[in-house]
Amino acid sequence: VLAEFERIGEIRRRLSYESAEVVLGIGDDAAILAPTECGQVCSVDTQVEGVHFRLDRSAPPDIGERALVVALSDLAAMGATPRAALVSLIVPTSLDETILFGIVDGIARTQHTYACPVVGGNLARGGELSITTTVLGAAPTAPLTRGGARPGDGLFVTGELGSAACGLALLLGNRANVNHPFVQRWQHPVARIAEGRRLAGVSSAAIDISDGLLQDLGHIAQASGVGFELTLTTLPLHPDLLQTAPSLGLQAHVLALTGGEDYELAFTVPVGREPPLGTRIGTVTSGPQIRVLDPNGHEVDFANTGFDHFE
Amino acid sequence: VLAEFERIGEIRRRLSYESAEVVLGIGDDAAILAPTECGQVCSVDTQVEGVHFRLDRSAPPDIGERALVVALSDLAAMGATPRAALVSLIVPTSLDETILFGIVDGIARTQHTYACPVVGGNLARGGELSITTTVLGAAPTAPLTRGGARPGDGLFVTGELGSAACGLALLLGNRANVNHPFVQRWQHPVARIAEGRRLAGVSSAAIDISDGLLQDLGHIAQASGVGFELTLTTLPLHPDLLQTAPSLGLQAHVLALTGGEDYELAFTVPVGREPPLGTRIGTVTSGPQIRVLDPNGHEVDFANTGFDHFE
Repeated sequence: VLAEFERIGEIRRRLSYESAEVVLGIGDDAAILAPTECGQVCSVDTQVEGVHFRLDRSAPPDIGERALVVALSDLAAMGATPRAALVSLIVPTSLDETILFGIVDGIARTQHTYACPVVGGNLARGGELSITTTVLGAAPTAPLTRGGARPGDGLFVTGELGSAACGLALLLGNRANVNHPFVQRWQHPVARIAEGRRLAGVSSAAIDISDGLLQDLGHIAQASGVGFELTLTTLPLHPDLLQTAPSLGLQAHVLALTGGEDYELAFTVPVGREPPLGTRIGTVTSGPQIRVLDPNGHEVDFANTGFDHFE
Repeated sequence: VLAEFERIGEIRRRLSYESAEVVLGIGDDAAILAPTECGQVCSVDTQVEGVHFRLDRSAPPDIGERALVVALSDLAAMGATPRAALVSLIVPTSLDETILFGIVDGIARTQHTYACPVVGGNLARGGELSITTTVLGAAPTAPLTRGGARPGDGLFVTGELGSAACGLALLLGNRANVNHPFVQRWQHPVARIAEGRRLAGVSSAAIDISDGLLQDLGHIAQASGVGFELTLTTLPLHPDLLQTAPSLGLQAHVLALTGGEDYELAFTVPVGREPPLGTRIGTVTSGPQIRVLDPNGHEVDFANTGFDHFE
């Protein structure tokens, strides 16, 4: 077991990343990023063992990767470009060092994927493993917010919905190993950075889907003072989800609407404009209700609007 | 007990802060700060219950205050000006809501003290209370780093040393109540923001003293490739420390050199220059040793170079 300062040195070595954006990286009292003419976007996310991940279900590098991606997803939802990250770890003294370094390795590989160098962090002792990731980005000229949706706007999503939540259910229920495509979908979410950047200036409002589509649309509804009407049949589902979900006692469209964990973007586009990407799934209404219509135009009732997977 | 979204709404209300620097504050996927021509300074610090603070020793608002100040101290050590903060809380479900809101109130009052609005954060469930604070600042033209000290430079510190560590020892030993001046000194550290800004462009290297003067000087020594020679008699001590420390079985100068918790700045100044503030306590040498000399010019030996108060 390494002493504290050696441990920090080892973490620093594994996170080494040369970047012209970074004036001063890990190793001083604070880091310094090069000046930019852009607004500065910032967000923070925390992943706690037993709440957001489990060491007996996920490999340490995958846990580290996911912690950074989930934080970056918030930058995607603003249309921002990642610039740097800070990582604060709370680590029990009993934690095996290979787990700690494995998590760091996952963060290290992900910073390269997203060109988002980790420029600083903190290592604290505690009783419970957690990873708090701060991400800093450059704002686009017209940042995406939750507040700009207007009645009549089209509602769109990137990618597919429900597969990640299904994968998590499979994983926690010991119904599939980590190689199952849906488990992979949960374990390796993608922050939709490129998509968010293309939507800036086009989309009237956006959010990333972490808690479940309906719940996250609720945030746009509240911030914009609108509602939504969704058509069940237009939800983008993976074909296999229609078989796999029932085998778990779940319904595919319920997973898609309330499962969360997708980290896709939900976004609205003003009337008459076509977005460069995404699947149309509904329309913004004067609200405040969020209604889902079946093929016969009847409203579908959902008691659940997001559920807690780990408890 | 409030539901999750009501709780977040209440926290958001208590942290409300109008600032021209903030384009978009709490409540979206991420916050946006106004563009600036300055380099962007960032740092993160985590305080864990039982490791960095105790609920049975400190009032919740004081815990919140201290979490933000300790993070801001790293900006001071760079000569940076605070712009915004992000606060990520891990909160046990069993935690009394008045404690959570008390911590938030302490953060709220401190953001005003330092003109450093909290623009975002995260609330996660977990088994152990912790506060992770990210601070963002504007870099001065010549940021202070740990790497610029040269042999012959003078070594200086702001304020007094040892009182905060003595206060913590009094508090943990139940030897004084929270009104004792040294306990207050521990509970209410000051981030030396104004001092750091005045030292930028003057000082060749700087660090804030969190772990103890000798240990923190070790970081400058390593980053600059130098050593230090300190004179014991020039250490700035509170007069009462000479009486109070022995009553705890401690020596005043040991507290000053190894106690930590001061959050003063230690900084070096090139030969021939006079800093606008601070007390001279020594000289930079070619190193690598850090030596402390008594009034007779003999080296004082310190086995301890920083100790852990809570265990």
